[in-house]
Amino acid sequence: MGDACGIGPEIIARAFECGAAVGCVVVGDAAVMRRATALSAEPMPLAVLETLADAACCPPRCVPVWQPDGLPAGLARLPWGQVDARAGAAAAACVQAAVRAVQRREAAAIVTAPLHKAALAAAGVPYPGHTEMLQALATAPGQLPPPVRMMLANDELRVVLVTIHLSLRAAIEAVTFDAVLGTLRIAHATAAPGAPPLRIAVAGLNPHAGEGGLFGDEEQLTIAPAIAAAVAEGIDARGPFAPDTVFMRARRGEFDLVVAMTHDHGLIPVKYLGVEHGVNVTLGLPFVRTSPDHGTAFDIAGCGTADPASLRAAIGWARRAAAAMAA
Amino acid sequence: MGDACGIGPEIIARAFECGAAVGCVVVGDAAVMRRATALSAEPMPLAVLETLADAACCPPRCVPVWQPDGLPAGLARLPWGQVDARAGAAAAACVQAAVRAVQRREAAAIVTAPLHKAALAAAGVPYPGHTEMLQALATAPGQLPPPVRMMLANDELRVVLVTIHLSLRAAIEAVTFDAVLGTLRIAHATAAPGAPPLRIAVAGLNPHAGEGGLFGDEEQLTIAPAIAAAVAEGIDARGPFAPDTVFMRARRGEFDLVVAMTHDHGLIPVKYLGVEHGVNVTLGLPFVRTSPDHGTAFDIAGCGTADPASLRAAIGWARRAAAAMAA
Repeated sequence: MGDACGIGPEIIARAFECGAAVGCVVVGDAAVMRRATALSAEPMPLAVLETLADAACCPPRCVPVWQPDGLPAGLARLPWGQVDARAGAAAAACVQAAVRAVQRREAAAIVTAPLHKAALAAAGVPYPGHTEMLQALATAPGQLPPPVRMMLANDELRVVLVTIHLSLRAAIEAVTFDAVLGTLRIAHATAAPGAPPLRIAVAGLNPHAGEGGLFGDEEQLTIAPAIAAAVAEGIDARGPFAPDTVFMRARRGEFDLVVAMTHDHGLIPVKYLGVEHGVNVTLGLPFVRTSPDHGTAFDIAGCGTADPASLRAAIGWARRAAAAMAA
Repeated sequence: MGDACGIGPEIIARAFECGAAVGCVVVGDAAVMRRATALSAEPMPLAVLETLADAACCPPRCVPVWQPDGLPAGLARLPWGQVDARAGAAAAACVQAAVRAVQRREAAAIVTAPLHKAALAAAGVPYPGHTEMLQALATAPGQLPPPVRMMLANDELRVVLVTIHLSLRAAIEAVTFDAVLGTLRIAHATAAPGAPPLRIAVAGLNPHAGEGGLFGDEEQLTIAPAIAAAVAEGIDARGPFAPDTVFMRARRGEFDLVVAMTHDHGLIPVKYLGVEHGVNVTLGLPFVRTSPDHGTAFDIAGCGTADPASLRAAIGWARRAAAAMAA
């Protein structure tokens, strides 16, 4: 459901209205979802499920909602577009319930609607965002959390990031042999079982990928050795290539996926043609998790104008990834 | 003409064939241009001019060539696709002659075809590339060279770069208050006389433009103060904005131009849809100078397959910019 005060509930309602979410179940608060469906000209009825298994008998043209135990009361009376600890706590409880459901194999994948990091923090949730929470929930007792990477994808480009939410200075330091090789392994593992290995292009860090050492040596000292180690493991990794043209080359079909060293090298091209169709995929988890490529959009929450396109794309991606894993 | 052994001469010939270069004069070697026109199925005749002023009486459907004095002999017998000091010396001599022509107001603008930096160096030319040579030629005795910036533009996006050919580490250090403010002044000055000020968006350096200082403080300490200083001078500068969405916003029409801190932040989106229509414009010179957004392409030089699209776009840009300056 995401944050009850953001656009999550309403884009979910709209994804059901247009048929994109058929077969999905909302893990969320029934009253919040009723408030969200009511924003539509012709609200769809809710089907409140006792258990996830009941989704199979949900009548058509309904929004099936499964409400985890213990959600805070009064969520549907919170004002739209404001940080509230109760909304943060509810969002976290829904994520946890969804993870337990995929772990019990009652669901095939998780699509997360946007949550608000400040609401999460206000609720005392010990994780800054979805990804860290999912990583912790996926960790068996006594084990290390699985290494994960963010992939951003749209119809024409897939990008996996070595570093994300760090200053550019810190990101340069974080581009290590292990970080690049780990990213290549995770990216390589996203190929569907039985499919040929993905053709992975690695973008350099520096202009012209360092121009032979003239504009920086990270390509020679770190990135190229990590690519060589990946190739020795059977990964189809190529590069490092000049960052300014590698994404264009991937868009034209030369590569299946680009590994980018920094947040913005990777996200600028994914978002350039519009954020509507971008999907955020968390790689490395033991289950499929996707999310739309935008936040809670508090400024327009409750207006009924939010665009469900990225959520629709996230649902479609999760459906295909879960089917590929099951095949 | 650019480097005689690269694709410069043949894309020039093709730009004349399709009519895009009508009104232009090739500053170059006549034999080299004859070899280039001969790559076409129906070669256009050359009109070798005594002086630039003779271009006015050049017959239609001809390639007018004005050959500066003192070009090395035998240029048209050099093998395609190889670095040669004579080709570097000739390219430099042609640039110098073109600059002198615009300075004497015998020409309205300069469009440079690609040269090869190694050939230039082999010829002992004391400048690494076109831009530095043009800057030096534009400097009056006893004066400092004018500060210049690279602008890359296509039909939907214009980007001006604060830093270019530096390692990413060095680029971060080069993002100073003066560098950002200087770039904003130069970008602002590109508006046509009498036109409204350009709406300039400034991209941050760090992910999310630093997220309020969480992922780096260059936005707060350097970039925002430079924007404020520019605004105080009447420049319509806004930001700093998150790098991953500002180019998409400019493409949709929210801004006229984006100032980017690093080479790849700026060039990834310009090149993403294809390099064919990208134009490189040198801002800050006392004359108009554009060039195609690609190099000498030694691997395909002489094959007659090189695409003149970027050169055509560079000619079109130069024509419009010169007309705006004359208006």
